[in-house]
Amino acid sequence: MSWQHIDLIKVKDVGPRDGLQMEKAFIPTEEKIKLINALSKSGVSAIQVTSVVHPKAVPQLVDAEIVMKNIERQSNVKYSVLVPNERGAERAVPMQADEWELMHSVTEAHCRANSNKSVDESLKEHEKVVKIARQNNITVQGGMATALGCPFEGRVSFERVLYTAEAYYSMGIRHIGVADTIGCADPKLVYTTMKQLIDKFPDVEFSLHLHNTRGMALANILAGINAGVFNYDASIGGLGGCPYAPGATGNIATEDLVHMLDLMDLHSGVNLNELLSISKDVERLVGHELESAIHRAGPSYQLHAAPDAQVKLDH
Amino acid sequence: MSWQHIDLIKVKDVGPRDGLQMEKAFIPTEEKIKLINALSKSGVSAIQVTSVVHPKAVPQLVDAEIVMKNIERQSNVKYSVLVPNERGAERAVPMQADEWELMHSVTEAHCRANSNKSVDESLKEHEKVVKIARQNNITVQGGMATALGCPFEGRVSFERVLYTAEAYYSMGIRHIGVADTIGCADPKLVYTTMKQLIDKFPDVEFSLHLHNTRGMALANILAGINAGVFNYDASIGGLGGCPYAPGATGNIATEDLVHMLDLMDLHSGVNLNELLSISKDVERLVGHELESAIHRAGPSYQLHAAPDAQVKLDH
Repeated sequence: MSWQHIDLIKVKDVGPRDGLQMEKAFIPTEEKIKLINALSKSGVSAIQVTSVVHPKAVPQLVDAEIVMKNIERQSNVKYSVLVPNERGAERAVPMQADEWELMHSVTEAHCRANSNKSVDESLKEHEKVVKIARQNNITVQGGMATALGCPFEGRVSFERVLYTAEAYYSMGIRHIGVADTIGCADPKLVYTTMKQLIDKFPDVEFSLHLHNTRGMALANILAGINAGVFNYDASIGGLGGCPYAPGATGNIATEDLVHMLDLMDLHSGVNLNELLSISKDVERLVGHELESAIHRAGPSYQLHAAPDAQVKLDH
Repeated sequence: MSWQHIDLIKVKDVGPRDGLQMEKAFIPTEEKIKLINALSKSGVSAIQVTSVVHPKAVPQLVDAEIVMKNIERQSNVKYSVLVPNERGAERAVPMQADEWELMHSVTEAHCRANSNKSVDESLKEHEKVVKIARQNNITVQGGMATALGCPFEGRVSFERVLYTAEAYYSMGIRHIGVADTIGCADPKLVYTTMKQLIDKFPDVEFSLHLHNTRGMALANILAGINAGVFNYDASIGGLGGCPYAPGATGNIATEDLVHMLDLMDLHSGVNLNELLSISKDVERLVGHELESAIHRAGPSYQLHAAPDAQVKLDH
C-alpha cells in the first residue's frame, strides 16, 4: 500500500440528484439551488445536479430546468445531468451541462427493472444519447449500475461488466463510472474489477460510485485507490438510499470520504468544515437524521478536555 | 493488495465486556452467560468475557466471577478477562481464564483519566499483574489504548506506541493489542503503525481493536490485513461506544467484519448466520437499535425478486 504518488482525488457530489431523489417530501427548488451553490464553493470537483428522467418516475426532480438555469456555476466545478434516454437528451440540451451521465445496468434483470429494456436495447438507446451529446459538444460519462453486484442476480461476472465497458468505449466514451448500486461490493471485488478495467482500457478515466449499505464503502474506496481509481462519487450527508435494503444507508457521505482522505494526506481540494456546515443545513432540509459518521461524531482531530477525576474505562 | 497467502483471520468477540460495559441497564447474569455460550459456538477464536475492574467503576460487570464460572467453554475458543491492576489480578486467578488482557493507555492524559496513573506507574502496575499471571501459568495479552489517537492529546507519535510496546516486550509479553480507542484512526496510520511494530517485534503477535466511530473501521482492518495483522477484535451487534463522541458507533460489529472477510474469501471460521441470529437476540436484550450494517441491511448475497414493472432509478 502506497499513496505517495497520488496528486489529487476528485470528488463528485451526487447528493442533489442521487441523494434527493430518495427523499419523499419535495425539496423546494430554491433550497436545491442553495445546496448546489454551497457545494460549488466547498471544493468538490463536480456536482451531479439533476436528472432529466420523466417527472412521473422521479417527481423530486421535476424542476431540473429551473435548477440548472439558476445555480451559480464555478469555473472549477463540472456540473452534470443524468440523461436516461433519447427523450431526456433532447430535454437536456438547452441546460448546458458540462457533462451528461448515462446510467445503464450491466445485468439484464436490473436493466429491465430500471429502464424496461434489455441490456442491448439500453445500450442502443444510449448510443442515440451520445450522438446528441456529440452534436452539442457535451462530454458524456458512461455509468455501469450493478457492475459490482445486482439485487436480483447477485454476483456479476466480469464479462458482463466488460460487455458494457466495451460498448461504451466503442461509442467514444472515455470516462466510465462503476457503481456498487446496492452497497454489496467488497474490497477484493472492487480491487480486481478496477485493476482489470484499467488494464483493458488504459485511456479511460474510471470513477467509483459506492453505496455504504453494508459499511464497506470506505474500505472499497481504499481498494479503489490502490487499484488506481482517483475519481469518487459521494453524497453530502450520505443522502440517498437503497430501495432493496430498507433502513440501510445510501451513498458514502462526502464528509466521511473527505475526512478519510484528509487524514491520509490525500489531496481532494475539498474543505471538510464547509461540508460539515452544509450537512447541518441538509439535515434540517430533509428533516431526518443523516447517515454520516462525521456529521454525527465530528472529525478525528477534534480534541476533548481531559477530565480532572478518574473516568470509566473506554478501551 | 494480495490476500492469497492468508490462512486464517482470528476474530475475538469483545461484546460481553467492552460492549456490555457501555449499557446503562444491567444485563441479567444469565443473559450474559447465554450470550457468551452462543458466541462460543459461532466460530470466533476468542471471547473477552468480562473484567475484574472495581464494580463501582463498572457496575455492569459486577458478576464477573459468576459469569466465568458458569459459561460452557469450548476447547477451540480462548476465554479472556480484562485485568486492570494487581488487585484485579488476585481476584482473577481463581477464574481460570485462558488469557488475561492488560489495558494501558500509551498517552499520559488518557492513562491518567483511565487509571489515575502516569504511563510509567501504569506499566509498573502491569508488571505486577504479569508476575501473578506467570505464577499461575496464564498467558497475558498487552493492550495499548489510544495507540492510534487520543481524545485529549490527538495524534500520537509512534515513539509513544513503541515505548509501551518495548515495556510489554521486556515483561515477556508476545501478544499485543493495538487499539483505536475513539475510532479516529485512518488506514494510512494503521498501516504504517502496524508495519513498523511488526518490523520491530517479529516474534510478537499483534491484534487490532478498532472502533467504527468515524466509519473507517473496515477500511482500517483492510489496511491492517495488508500490514500483516491477522487478529481482530469485534463486538457482536457493534455493542460498545465512545464516551467522547455521543451518538457515535462503538466497536466494529463482529457480523460486519465476518461479512467482509467472507466476501473476500478470507477464512475466519465464523458462521455469519449464527452471528446474525445472536445479534437479533442482543438487540432485544439491550433494548435499542444496534450499530451493525449487516444486522440492518442483511448480507450482500441476499437476493431480491425482480419486480414485474418498471421501478424507480436506484443508481
